[in-house]
Amino acid sequence: MKVVTCTAPVNIAVIKYWGKRNEELILPINSSLSVTLHQDQLKTTTSIAASRDFAEDRIWLNGKEENIQHPRLQTCLREVRRLARKRRNDAEEDTVSRILNYKVHICSVNNFPTAAGLASSAAGYACLVYTLAKLYSVEGELSEIARQGSGSACRSMYGGFVQWVMGEMEDGRDSLAQQVEAETHWPELRILVLVASAEKKHVGSTSGMQTSVQTSPLLKFRAESVVPERMKDMIEAIKKKDFEAFGQLTMKDSNQFHATCLDTYPPIFYLNRVSQEIISLVHRYNAHYGRTKVAYSFDAGPNAVIFTLEPTVDEFVELVTCCFPPESNGDPFLKGLPVNPTSLSQDLLSAAGSDQCPGGVRYIIVTQPGPGPSQSQDLSLDLLGSDGLPKRSA
Amino acid sequence: MKVVTCTAPVNIAVIKYWGKRNEELILPINSSLSVTLHQDQLKTTTSIAASRDFAEDRIWLNGKEENIQHPRLQTCLREVRRLARKRRNDAEEDTVSRILNYKVHICSVNNFPTAAGLASSAAGYACLVYTLAKLYSVEGELSEIARQGSGSACRSMYGGFVQWVMGEMEDGRDSLAQQVEAETHWPELRILVLVASAEKKHVGSTSGMQTSVQTSPLLKFRAESVVPERMKDMIEAIKKKDFEAFGQLTMKDSNQFHATCLDTYPPIFYLNRVSQEIISLVHRYNAHYGRTKVAYSFDAGPNAVIFTLEPTVDEFVELVTCCFPPESNGDPFLKGLPVNPTSLSQDLLSAAGSDQCPGGVRYIIVTQPGPGPSQSQDLSLDLLGSDGLPKRSA
Repeated sequence: MKVVTCTAPVNIAVIKYWGKRNEELILPINSSLSVTLHQDQLKTTTSIAASRDFAEDRIWLNGKEENIQHPRLQTCLREVRRLARKRRNDAEEDTVSRILNYKVHICSVNNFPTAAGLASSAAGYACLVYTLAKLYSVEGELSEIARQGSGSACRSMYGGFVQWVMGEMEDGRDSLAQQVEAETHWPELRILVLVASAEKKHVGSTSGMQTSVQTSPLLKFRAESVVPERMKDMIEAIKKKDFEAFGQLTMKDSNQFHATCLDTYPPIFYLNRVSQEIISLVHRYNAHYGRTKVAYSFDAGPNAVIFTLEPTVDEFVELVTCCFPPESNGDPFLKGLPVNPTSLSQDLLSAAGSDQCPGGVRYIIVTQPGPGPSQSQDLSLDLLGSDGLPKRSA
Repeated sequence: MKVVTCTAPVNIAVIKYWGKRNEELILPINSSLSVTLHQDQLKTTTSIAASRDFAEDRIWLNGKEENIQHPRLQTCLREVRRLARKRRNDAEEDTVSRILNYKVHICSVNNFPTAAGLASSAAGYACLVYTLAKLYSVEGELSEIARQGSGSACRSMYGGFVQWVMGEMEDGRDSLAQQVEAETHWPELRILVLVASAEKKHVGSTSGMQTSVQTSPLLKFRAESVVPERMKDMIEAIKKKDFEAFGQLTMKDSNQFHATCLDTYPPIFYLNRVSQEIISLVHRYNAHYGRTKVAYSFDAGPNAVIFTLEPTVDEFVELVTCCFPPESNGDPFLKGLPVNPTSLSQDLLSAAGSDQCPGGVRYIIVTQPGPGPSQSQDLSLDLLGSDGLPKRSA
């Protein structure tokens, strides 16, 4: 039995992906760009074992066996195996060609609650594809396959700042992720994930973007006429480490994505009252300082992702804590990188403070840009035991 | 002393006006279309007296004296007086030329609470211009002047279904309101104003649309590329009394207007949690019946305006009452046209019902399309006494 264990990161888009031009191949209607979050705070771990003793392919996600026949899962398995056959050295009858005939057991866990509403499918499919590739010793470009698991998963195949170039070809060969800058490029950048208390279940992103593509005139215009320029501007802002430009563009693009959701028929609302309060708080905070010190971005749910620079973290976290007093729920309110308690000036409080909304933010994860997927050499992290079944802890 | 008293209606846009191409002349970036609401439920009453004994022009709004120097007020006064001079018969030295030299006292009241957040400036400026015109015996097109008081006021100069053609000329001479169909055209049409409990003060429409014009790429696209076709489709739907088309277009256009507010930087939110619940309720209700039986529209605030046909009123009002149980506040929950209590089928309740949101809707005004401004012949309705000052009741 061969076991390989890898980890992969979550990413947060600052130029948003919303809408496919090809549902089957997951080809987007516009390019997008994301920041890869550090795996110290948020990651998926996946172990895959191959053995001639396995009777069938099986998969366990967060401790629960799931249906391996899921079409996108099957696509990823089929495509990595196809690549393994194609890229391996035909001359030698090696390990790879042997285990390519074995069934696999896949076990995957997140180190963050799925309930948090963080896009776990991106990290999950990136990790699946990366781990399969390691198992079969496949090198090179893999984002095309990860994309077919979950569109945004292709961006989780790299660390730092990553663009997903939409491509033009019908078969999707040129719809790939590319690193724009490495995770070390902008060391001061910090990311706060403000997990909002969700009042209700939201429209899933797959069906949501389908409806948007079919019904929103504004989405089509955005994809064709707004995003291309924004991609250029965002890459430039990142390369220059220009937080003013980066932050403003991030906020504008998040807002425009949610605007196209509202232009969808029937309309889709992902921002709730807490999200609106956070948006308002960020603008008041920036207005107080006369520049963009923090920026928000929201995906298909109410959680806020805040971008800022290291010197601003303590104060902004204090302000959020003040506007959304934590309701004790047994969990710590602050997770991840350390934050120092600080006191807020009366000036700031009267300019940016608001009516308190207790419990509106459940907790905050403090993190930073991080590296792409990697293989673990620590056998103790394997999620599958010697019997090929998930360990107790997995 | 000559006193004239007139009334004018509120109108609700179903193709929205948002954004000026000329702030001074109030020229819009797109045409718009509205339904004039019946004055039995919602109206402004204005009395204007002219007397040689008045020392200066004065104005009282809803019982409080306001500054007559307000620029838009001055524009309306100046323009109607200019028209009176131009259109009168120069040969005769008549009453008009005499009172044109007198100062005026203006007194105006709404029969609905201003706090309700219903666009009172449209009815107010329409009534001002109409009453001034009657005072000075000016006949003919007046919407160009009303437009310069408040853009949407031009549409309150007519009853029924009214379009505001954006026009092309620099001086705004062709930016006028026109009746599309009279108030008698679609006798089954009903309008419910759901006054939502507002949590906070909203961005005013004048400054809101300025920011949108300056910052929203989607608004520009909407005005240039979406609205022209929608105007045609809406006029056709009204002429055919096609509620399916009318309702869908009304909802889509309301949503797109709010989408452009969200695409504004900083973003503007007019829809609150109650608005979102009403939107969701309408879509569930229509989905239950498999067709568009009710439609919503929201202006620059959280109140919902519901369009439906007479046979649907009782049931939908019952459903709203069920989802938003009235919190007794001394006021009746239902105002306006009579509604018959009805019982909801279990089918409908399980398909369209939701978590109850007590007090979310403060009250409902039931009304229908109505006529344009008119002069009152009933002297007892004059708001100004024989001393030229507001009566007690005004």
